[in-house]
Amino acid sequence: MTGTPGGASTGAVGLVLARPTRLLGVEPFFMEFIAGIEERLAERDLSVLLHVVSAQDAEIAAYRRWAARGLVDAVVVVNRTEDDRRPAVLREVGLPAVLVGEPDGDLPAVRTDDTAPIRAALEHLVAAGHRAIARVTGPAGLLHTQARTTALLAACAEHGVVPAIVEGDYSEESGAKLTAALLELDEPPTAVLYDNDVMAVAGLGAAKERGVEVPGGLSIIAWDDSTLCRLATPALTTMSVDVHRFGELVAESVLELIAGGPVADRWSPAAVLVARESTKASPA
Amino acid sequence: MTGTPGGASTGAVGLVLARPTRLLGVEPFFMEFIAGIEERLAERDLSVLLHVVSAQDAEIAAYRRWAARGLVDAVVVVNRTEDDRRPAVLREVGLPAVLVGEPDGDLPAVRTDDTAPIRAALEHLVAAGHRAIARVTGPAGLLHTQARTTALLAACAEHGVVPAIVEGDYSEESGAKLTAALLELDEPPTAVLYDNDVMAVAGLGAAKERGVEVPGGLSIIAWDDSTLCRLATPALTTMSVDVHRFGELVAESVLELIAGGPVADRWSPAAVLVARESTKASPA
Repeated sequence: MTGTPGGASTGAVGLVLARPTRLLGVEPFFMEFIAGIEERLAERDLSVLLHVVSAQDAEIAAYRRWAARGLVDAVVVVNRTEDDRRPAVLREVGLPAVLVGEPDGDLPAVRTDDTAPIRAALEHLVAAGHRAIARVTGPAGLLHTQARTTALLAACAEHGVVPAIVEGDYSEESGAKLTAALLELDEPPTAVLYDNDVMAVAGLGAAKERGVEVPGGLSIIAWDDSTLCRLATPALTTMSVDVHRFGELVAESVLELIAGGPVADRWSPAAVLVARESTKASPA
Repeated sequence: MTGTPGGASTGAVGLVLARPTRLLGVEPFFMEFIAGIEERLAERDLSVLLHVVSAQDAEIAAYRRWAARGLVDAVVVVNRTEDDRRPAVLREVGLPAVLVGEPDGDLPAVRTDDTAPIRAALEHLVAAGHRAIARVTGPAGLLHTQARTTALLAACAEHGVVPAIVEGDYSEESGAKLTAALLELDEPPTAVLYDNDVMAVAGLGAAKERGVEVPGGLSIIAWDDSTLCRLATPALTTMSVDVHRFGELVAESVLELIAGGPVADRWSPAAVLVARESTKASPA
């Protein structure tokens, strides 16, 4: 079933975010992403039907409800996971979907290359003499977290480096706590790569609290650029993604899908290294 | 017309944001606000139908479209303005609405007290010896900007202080540019009160760039607490509002309205001063 029972447009494209609502206000990524989607949808008088839930079960329940009641023309599926049950459910209920990240069978996807950016970040650190490198990841069940981990391990192996990889949840709390733990290791890292901006800025705070200077004693690279990174002291080096453009690209696939057309294969904008003040030569 | 032609719930509550989409990803306020609304709506399987437009004309067009097609059960109206045409349009098209901020006739509203927080901010500065006080506002056409201006002028008059008030637009750029301009005055302010967090953090950056130490040479008070304020160096004193709770309260009014009322009179959580490192005694 597509759209309302009558076949007319519902005026909406669904987006379910399965994460703690309190995290939404903190991490700029999704609001920028939604703003990018909206920019394209608004040209066709479409809006985003946004639903925030705590877990994938509730997300699937929302899809079933939306499909049964014809509430959306299509949905955008984010944060692809291991054993992701959503593509099968969406096929079953006949809800048109654009996957963001890993493709699944015949469903259109907007893919992301995590390998090249991870290699760029690592080269930046290795070139500055760093050998003790850590990474604070997002949730390990997310496919893009796994893709970055695989890429980092491969790139590090080429340099004979064994990175310390610890799992965070994108929150300020996890960024601070995990950075503190890393700095207490017998051989603490001289550089940390974070999977988002919030954890990186919180890690900067944790380092300062312990009297570890950034970048004098510790280099920091964030992921996703934002006001947080630009206005931090020191300003953070980051892997910058044009998140707004990312949202626009996803919307373009959605519009092609709703139009019944073929949907072009799209890749999200590549993350590029923006070097600022938080990285420098290893103190070792 | 309420809801779908059949009278069943549409599953959605509409929220139109009339502002540049690029600003959305930068300012944490609306994502926290939406997250709070979602937290309550999710209990009833309702979602937020979010539409981002550039101006009030397009917002009104969206309401007419939503009403004609029965796409939402109710709408939340934010950023009340001078000569606000929206309440009249919403009555005309019969779309149930909760106003956020200034009430209008019989439409339910969740009001905000700007006077007491402005007085608290000013008292904090005056007690520290500041007499040269400036404020960087949000858009002057917004009623809550005007309420804060009126409150500040009244409170300053009691202390024989004439504040410098300049109009910003909540963006990083305006915060930086206006702060630089204020610091170039013949008698620059020793303290600046900002109308959001983004402009305050950008103002901090502008002061640092000019070699003006915060708080040594300039005290800064932000509005709305966020990761930006907490993780800035120095951490920013701010007028903190529980924006998530604010969203929940608005959702409670919406749910009462959808249920057929009555809708309780509600006030948003009061902004309270959170003193951090960016304010101290006037250097004069």
